[in-house]
Amino acid sequence: MKSLASDNFSGVHPDILQAVIDANVGHEFAYGYDRYTEKAVEMFRERLGDVDVFFVSTGTGANVLGLKAIMRSYDAVLCPETAHINTNECGAVESIVGCHIIAIPTKDGKISVDDIRRYLHLLGDEHHAQPKVISISQPTELGTLYTTKEIKSLSEFAHKHGMYLHMDGARISNAAATMGMSFKEFTTDAGVDVLSFGGTKNGMMMGEAVIFFDRALSRNFKYIRKQGTQLASKMRFISAQFIAFLKDDLYLKNAAHANKMAKMLAEGIKDIPRIKIVQEVQTNAVFAIVPSEYIPELQENYFFCVVDENISLVRWMCSFDTTEEDVKGFVSLLKGVVV
Amino acid sequence: MKSLASDNFSGVHPDILQAVIDANVGHEFAYGYDRYTEKAVEMFRERLGDVDVFFVSTGTGANVLGLKAIMRSYDAVLCPETAHINTNECGAVESIVGCHIIAIPTKDGKISVDDIRRYLHLLGDEHHAQPKVISISQPTELGTLYTTKEIKSLSEFAHKHGMYLHMDGARISNAAATMGMSFKEFTTDAGVDVLSFGGTKNGMMMGEAVIFFDRALSRNFKYIRKQGTQLASKMRFISAQFIAFLKDDLYLKNAAHANKMAKMLAEGIKDIPRIKIVQEVQTNAVFAIVPSEYIPELQENYFFCVVDENISLVRWMCSFDTTEEDVKGFVSLLKGVVV
Amino acid sequence: MKSLASDNFSGVHPDILQAVIDANVGHEFAYGYDRYTEKAVEMFRERLGDVDVFFVSTGTGANVLGLKAIMRSYDAVLCPETAHINTNECGAVESIVGCHIIAIPTKDGKISVDDIRRYLHLLGDEHHAQPKVISISQPTELGTLYTTKEIKSLSEFAHKHGMYLHMDGARISNAAATMGMSFKEFTTDAGVDVLSFGGTKNGMMMGEAVIFFDRALSRNFKYIRKQGTQLASKMRFISAQFIAFLKDDLYLKNAAHANKMAKMLAEGIKDIPRIKIVQEVQTNAVFAIVPSEYIPELQENYFFCVVDENISLVRWMCSFDTTEEDVKGFVSLLKGVVV
Amino acid sequence: MKSLASDNFSGVHPDILQAVIDANVGHEFAYGYDRYTEKAVEMFRERLGDVDVFFVSTGTGANVLGLKAIMRSYDAVLCPETAHINTNECGAVESIVGCHIIAIPTKDGKISVDDIRRYLHLLGDEHHAQPKVISISQPTELGTLYTTKEIKSLSEFAHKHGMYLHMDGARISNAAATMGMSFKEFTTDAGVDVLSFGGTKNGMMMGEAVIFFDRALSRNFKYIRKQGTQLASKMRFISAQFIAFLKDDLYLKNAAHANKMAKMLAEGIKDIPRIKIVQEVQTNAVFAIVPSEYIPELQENYFFCVVDENISLVRWMCSFDTTEEDVKGFVSLLKGVVV
Repeated sequence: MKSLASDNFSGVHPDILQAVIDANVGHEFAYGYDRYTEKAVEMFRERLGDVDVFFVSTGTGANVLGLKAIMRSYDAVLCPETAHINTNECGAVESIVGCHIIAIPTKDGKISVDDIRRYLHLLGDEHHAQPKVISISQPTELGTLYTTKEIKSLSEFAHKHGMYLHMDGARISNAAATMGMSFKEFTTDAGVDVLSFGGTKNGMMMGEAVIFFDRALSRNFKYIRKQGTQLASKMRFISAQFIAFLKDDLYLKNAAHANKMAKMLAEGIKDIPRIKIVQEVQTNAVFAIVPSEYIPELQENYFFCVVDENISLVRWMCSFDTTEEDVKGFVSLLKGVVV
Repeated sequence: MKSLASDNFSGVHPDILQAVIDANVGHEFAYGYDRYTEKAVEMFRERLGDVDVFFVSTGTGANVLGLKAIMRSYDAVLCPETAHINTNECGAVESIVGCHIIAIPTKDGKISVDDIRRYLHLLGDEHHAQPKVISISQPTELGTLYTTKEIKSLSEFAHKHGMYLHMDGARISNAAATMGMSFKEFTTDAGVDVLSFGGTKNGMMMGEAVIFFDRALSRNFKYIRKQGTQLASKMRFISAQFIAFLKDDLYLKNAAHANKMAKMLAEGIKDIPRIKIVQEVQTNAVFAIVPSEYIPELQENYFFCVVDENISLVRWMCSFDTTEEDVKGFVSLLKGVVV
Repeated sequence: MKSLASDNFSGVHPDILQAVIDANVGHEFAYGYDRYTEKAVEMFRERLGDVDVFFVSTGTGANVLGLKAIMRSYDAVLCPETAHINTNECGAVESIVGCHIIAIPTKDGKISVDDIRRYLHLLGDEHHAQPKVISISQPTELGTLYTTKEIKSLSEFAHKHGMYLHMDGARISNAAATMGMSFKEFTTDAGVDVLSFGGTKNGMMMGEAVIFFDRALSRNFKYIRKQGTQLASKMRFISAQFIAFLKDDLYLKNAAHANKMAKMLAEGIKDIPRIKIVQEVQTNAVFAIVPSEYIPELQENYFFCVVDENISLVRWMCSFDTTEEDVKGFVSLLKGVVV
Repeated sequence: MKSLASDNFSGVHPDILQAVIDANVGHEFAYGYDRYTEKAVEMFRERLGDVDVFFVSTGTGANVLGLKAIMRSYDAVLCPETAHINTNECGAVESIVGCHIIAIPTKDGKISVDDIRRYLHLLGDEHHAQPKVISISQPTELGTLYTTKEIKSLSEFAHKHGMYLHMDGARISNAAATMGMSFKEFTTDAGVDVLSFGGTKNGMMMGEAVIFFDRALSRNFKYIRKQGTQLASKMRFISAQFIAFLKDDLYLKNAAHANKMAKMLAEGIKDIPRIKIVQEVQTNAVFAIVPSEYIPELQENYFFCVVDENISLVRWMCSFDTTEEDVKGFVSLLKGVVV
């Protein structure tokens, strides 16, 4: 099967798998007190500064537990309506943090200070869940990117009003690749408080990191992770993946390639009259409106997701292992089918 | 103080207070196993059919626990964005039910089958909280009313898709008064599954009822109420209030009067050019846009709430004890101040 | 019905009911921003010092929300196995705070520093819920009392280890009456951090208070109360009760009387060979083992609870309105039945 | 490092690692809709009957989410005081299921019908969390085993009273090895309702299964798993491990070896006068009391856990890769140190 469904339909990058194999030696302390975890955390600190780093196995785990660390149940998290935490985690935030989500409609998956400002009047009134966290995704679920300036304006606004800025970085490598920046420049330096750092969607087998830029916020996170079912006993096998992921900028090569494939796809189909690309292709996803009658035939050959049936919106997602041939083949298919 | 802030700024109707006084005789079984509760429940059954009735002390308690009875944490409740459960309960639904809220923008506080239909595609997909309950308020938080036909269409749609219809009836007496109907006609007969029946806002001291129209749904509600901190030990003093409330249609007299006062207010100010009434006055609330510069002076004399500062939207709420003089005085004040 | 089942089978003391009647005048700010609440809080401060006071409607509400204010879900509360929060709140603490309860077996419903010390090793280990709160009941659910010295030793131990001392004072007036002390002496001065102050069981209609002795702990409690469904809109009717309750030491007269009745009962039956009083009668409850064959006949005349069927343990609870005739009648019945 | 601390200090069995490597081919459907998962589930069904099987990544995840599927927050789970869900999951059950735990003291980590029976009187009384699940661990956290007859008596009792039997099988392979039985004989055939089937502690990298023996109970589990943060996107890499784990009874070889090592250890030290083995060695753990003064020197050479410092109780846990040399070396060390 060749798939443009998601970057988690792909397998594991060979270097990362090799790191897993190499870690399978003898006994190690369980639950993250091993040498691989120590090393991986150190590598994150070299890149991000004096952060706290906790590995978990899923993106939902990273998001929900990261939010739990900085929220109480009477707080609210504000996010775009399209945010993964709002639409794709089966109510995990509400169930595990117990908090209210204020979902803000957007055109491109991005929210601004102006969007948040109109909820400030809720502060201090016990009848309303209290705005406490602004959560953004970088890149967004629509493949778009915030500029560092936009991130900074959100973090400054948040901090000014006693709030935090949370970033869902499930595909953060893809953001870094396009921005041409280190992770640090658009996280640490941009005032992010808590980050879900994604590995799985960029060539890892299984592994995400919850990163706290202020140690005071993570003081009790080890309990939250354990209670949240996300403390892996043989954690070395997650940590070893992250070591390979960060080493020699493998993450960047993987992400840059996936992004390039998406660009190539978008370029290849831009002249097909009945296909309309509806979001700027800034990372590894192409969002397009395709007449619904063609979709079944397309899906027979390349599996992908229909995001919104009502408007026939589809998503094509490229992965670290998507090849130029895959893209060319799909473009060719599109040109043949969508007439 | 004279207030148009809310119908819970008023006190207790004398007949209801007398019922409390009369109930203060000797010992009674605690926790609702008393004769007053038995009688009050019976009176509800006479009016609504073979329902299960549970008394609680607050509207938030009624809404949240009623929803908890029919939802699991992976379910979603769909409601208008203006729903009390979404905006005015400090995240209680998320905290106590643990579920996701899908808040739908509306013009008049009412949602329709078409609004719900576009979420049906979420059903069966584990990435999304599962639409399980449609929650409407009758009257809405904007003072508007659903017709019985509209309620029926929602309940039929809900049941067809394995969902329930929940009604927040915090001011249900005001709805009944305007509709000229028995409660039964627009609840039991319209397919409502669970109802928060309000007493406090219509002349009671403290008391709401959670009503289940299908006994299967309330089988375990006694545990939910106790665990939800809403099992009053000396319940007879809530039940006695409901007896007086229902007896001789006191609820209807109270509500009809409050509605009448709101109509009188709306009528009195309709010609003030700079005041714009923005919702149809169907019950006991008047929603109007008033130039913000006049509001402080108005509030000095009659306390009321600014609902949305951004657009200078205010709410004037009449109560069972609002007098014609109150309304006339306020109209006169408005005419003097808003020029 | 005459009942020795519980002190909440009784009604409302006439002075307290009169206060409710007197509060039914005109409009007041809702949700506790009224003058009665202000006055009642002031009266608590006169008695307890610079505390924060929040009224709620049920004892479970007071306990659970008070604990929620000082705990996170990964914390544990340590309490006697007989604690109301452990055995009689249908899992409310776990459901609403989400935390672990460590229930410690005791002989008399009281725990000591030695009981707590053996759990200290859990601190800092993420595999275990973290001991955070010691919760005691004063009087205990077995009618026994802690001395102020015992309370102080628990609070000092708690504070030394970063923990809090919570007191469930559902019947705190009965404790004060026996101890011959002001509330302050065995709460504020003994290092209690959070107190559930009971009113309902001592002659009120409905009303408990959550009291914080350190304002830092209650900073966000208003949100917790609202979200916890316990923010009464017409709160003046709870507050007015507390004013009457505290005024002229009415609480003390009620409690002293109930305690006296329990003493009289215990005295009256001490020579019945087959009845064994198993807890020291320090407040208003008598715990006794009565041969099970006699219980039905006794309950026909005076309703009371069998606490543990396995050992035929019963509880007789006296109330503010239990009369000497009631006690004499019951003693006489016992003497006639239990041979 | 050589460790007797836990069977999750070891790495991955080579055959299982090879299966992971072999699964790294091309694209697969994410979230468990892949061919490896289909195959692994089928292998479970061949062994257990018509069960539902869901893979997760941690034992806490398996236990908590399995319980969530069959409980509401007002239910109680009864288990031995030593149960992992009670003592070693940082309050996860309370936090995520929201339910009460009734922890029953035992001598050997096992509970019986008689232990449960004395809680039956709670049923139907809304003041108490409702006994709904009996949870046992096979083997127990003390390394002991229930006989199939004991399991059957618990399941029959549970079902008779509307309750379920949950089994924490974190080390279920070690139980099977000692019992000389198929999994089916002491789970499906013994009336277990929900099983946490452990893989990680017996040579897997990461992977547990939640198994439902009645499909009605798992109807909504896919939502519970996703919401519970335990839906792995690249699930094939967990499923592939289980395929290797079950194939050719690898699980049994691993477990039998670990059990044998524990037996050898117990045998080797039985004559050391100051070491007292306190639990029957039925699986891969040896529980012993060792004078505390010797423990530091022992731990310098072989890491292991002190289970209860108060009584100097230690646990030595053997793994699939513990060698005879390891055991001999440790026995020799013990004999040299503990005099």
